[in-house]
Amino acid sequence: MTLALDIGGTKIAGALVRGDGKLLVSARRATPRGTDGDGVMAALEEVVGELAQAPEWAGVRRCGIGSAGPIDASRGTVSPVNIGAWRGYPVVERTEKALARHGAPVPTVLVGDGVAMTAAEHWLGAARGHRNALCMVVSTGVGGGLVLDGRLHPGPTGNAGHIGHISVELDGELCPCGSRGCVEIIASGTSIARHAGLADAAAAAEAARAGDPAALAAFDRAGKALAAGIAGTATLVEIDICVIGGGVAAAGDLLFGPLRRHLKTYAALSFVGHLEITAAALGTEAGLVGAAAAAGQLLEV
Amino acid sequence: MTLALDIGGTKIAGALVRGDGKLLVSARRATPRGTDGDGVMAALEEVVGELAQAPEWAGVRRCGIGSAGPIDASRGTVSPVNIGAWRGYPVVERTEKALARHGAPVPTVLVGDGVAMTAAEHWLGAARGHRNALCMVVSTGVGGGLVLDGRLHPGPTGNAGHIGHISVELDGELCPCGSRGCVEIIASGTSIARHAGLADAAAAAEAARAGDPAALAAFDRAGKALAAGIAGTATLVEIDICVIGGGVAAAGDLLFGPLRRHLKTYAALSFVGHLEITAAALGTEAGLVGAAAAAGQLLEV
Repeated sequence: MTLALDIGGTKIAGALVRGDGKLLVSARRATPRGTDGDGVMAALEEVVGELAQAPEWAGVRRCGIGSAGPIDASRGTVSPVNIGAWRGYPVVERTEKALARHGAPVPTVLVGDGVAMTAAEHWLGAARGHRNALCMVVSTGVGGGLVLDGRLHPGPTGNAGHIGHISVELDGELCPCGSRGCVEIIASGTSIARHAGLADAAAAAEAARAGDPAALAAFDRAGKALAAGIAGTATLVEIDICVIGGGVAAAGDLLFGPLRRHLKTYAALSFVGHLEITAAALGTEAGLVGAAAAAGQLLEV
Repeated sequence: MTLALDIGGTKIAGALVRGDGKLLVSARRATPRGTDGDGVMAALEEVVGELAQAPEWAGVRRCGIGSAGPIDASRGTVSPVNIGAWRGYPVVERTEKALARHGAPVPTVLVGDGVAMTAAEHWLGAARGHRNALCMVVSTGVGGGLVLDGRLHPGPTGNAGHIGHISVELDGELCPCGSRGCVEIIASGTSIARHAGLADAAAAAEAARAGDPAALAAFDRAGKALAAGIAGTATLVEIDICVIGGGVAAAGDLLFGPLRRHLKTYAALSFVGHLEITAAALGTEAGLVGAAAAAGQLLEV
């Protein structure tokens, strides 16, 4: 049994995950606002406390934490953009203490949420059976993770696979991260909506389906940026599949159509020509399933 | 003892490489022109035949081949851009047959020349001791390779690390590879010379040192493209050092200056901010040393 924790700007979720990936018990709290670091931690401790009441708690052998980034797995700290009270917050140490208080002094692994989603899709989703995969989320932001040589590749700090912040336009738009022309500043739901002149990505998708030229152009540009980023990733590390989830990916062919078309341009070398693009198979549970998968894989090494 | 072979458009070189990386005996032939595939292979067989005369030949336990790309390590074939007679040529099978004829039926590993150079710099050069490194050559073209988690990452086909052909300009110049805005079409010696309006990169470097604005702009643009590509690589896989060799890198600060300056823009996320950029430590022997290193590392798995 693995205790999985999924930390985001909106909610902190937890679950006891069985060896086959099934979530047996789950709990969640809204991520506290207007409090300090320990105040946010109190919500996580409540999630742990609730799960510790379950009879299955006795079987917990390890803990996996997937968190919004940036994180630093080498220090066990997180500084999520959307949780201002946590800057370099030692979530691993605090979580391990909480687990010990509940009689489960188990090892804990921390990965970024893109890496967690990737672990989930590789374990039970659309990347299953692939030895080299890029999995990504296209939502309000763009994140991702990598499987290389059959294993999760979190990188030393747990942040590898950050495809949203590679530049595909040298002189492109300034990104909040400080760089220019990042995939995210072109292809995120937020950016698509802005380029379409609409309130959100759902409105942009509706307008594009009705034939609105600005909305269609925004999706085309997003597909182009994703194609360049995905092809670049394949050219760098050799992946054979790219799995895409998230709210914007739910727009289906509106995004996948331009993406696949532009991929023919950017995936030019012979060894990346066979790259498969597919939709993610797991839904909102991917964060928890992936945190458990990452713990299983990274702690057995 | 490892037999190392380095296949390029100009020459085919070979050496017997000792366990400490020292080249004990070496041989080379010009790469034949105007002949068929087996005619080119004859030159490689001559190199092998010459080396087989050395007393050290009896100690050969494995063979590493580094070749100009594209290659397909999974099939053991090469299709080097600059060797037109070899398209899907089964160089591994033919080499193993030649070795057997000379009494050395040893296993053979094929990697791209960028991967070989990386193996060399990681074994004995500027990337030594680093667990995550990008090594690259900036010359008439731009190539590279990756060390991840302390091991060479050739990818399934031996082509990983092809940083010259990731796009950093969505709508950039058309690259001969078929893509647009590749790092190579901006940052190779050929491209720098063209943008400077001069015959070659050496002339461009001389003009830039004399203050010629077009030549300075060409080096600045090259540094910018390299910075975006290197930062993108670090953002994707987490590397802590980038080693750069090749003729253009020999221009020193003309290239490294703009590169380091632009890196501050593109390496924006906290986990890539500490990335070190350094010049390659090995010279022209890197191809042979690297082929031996790759054989040692990939055959022991």
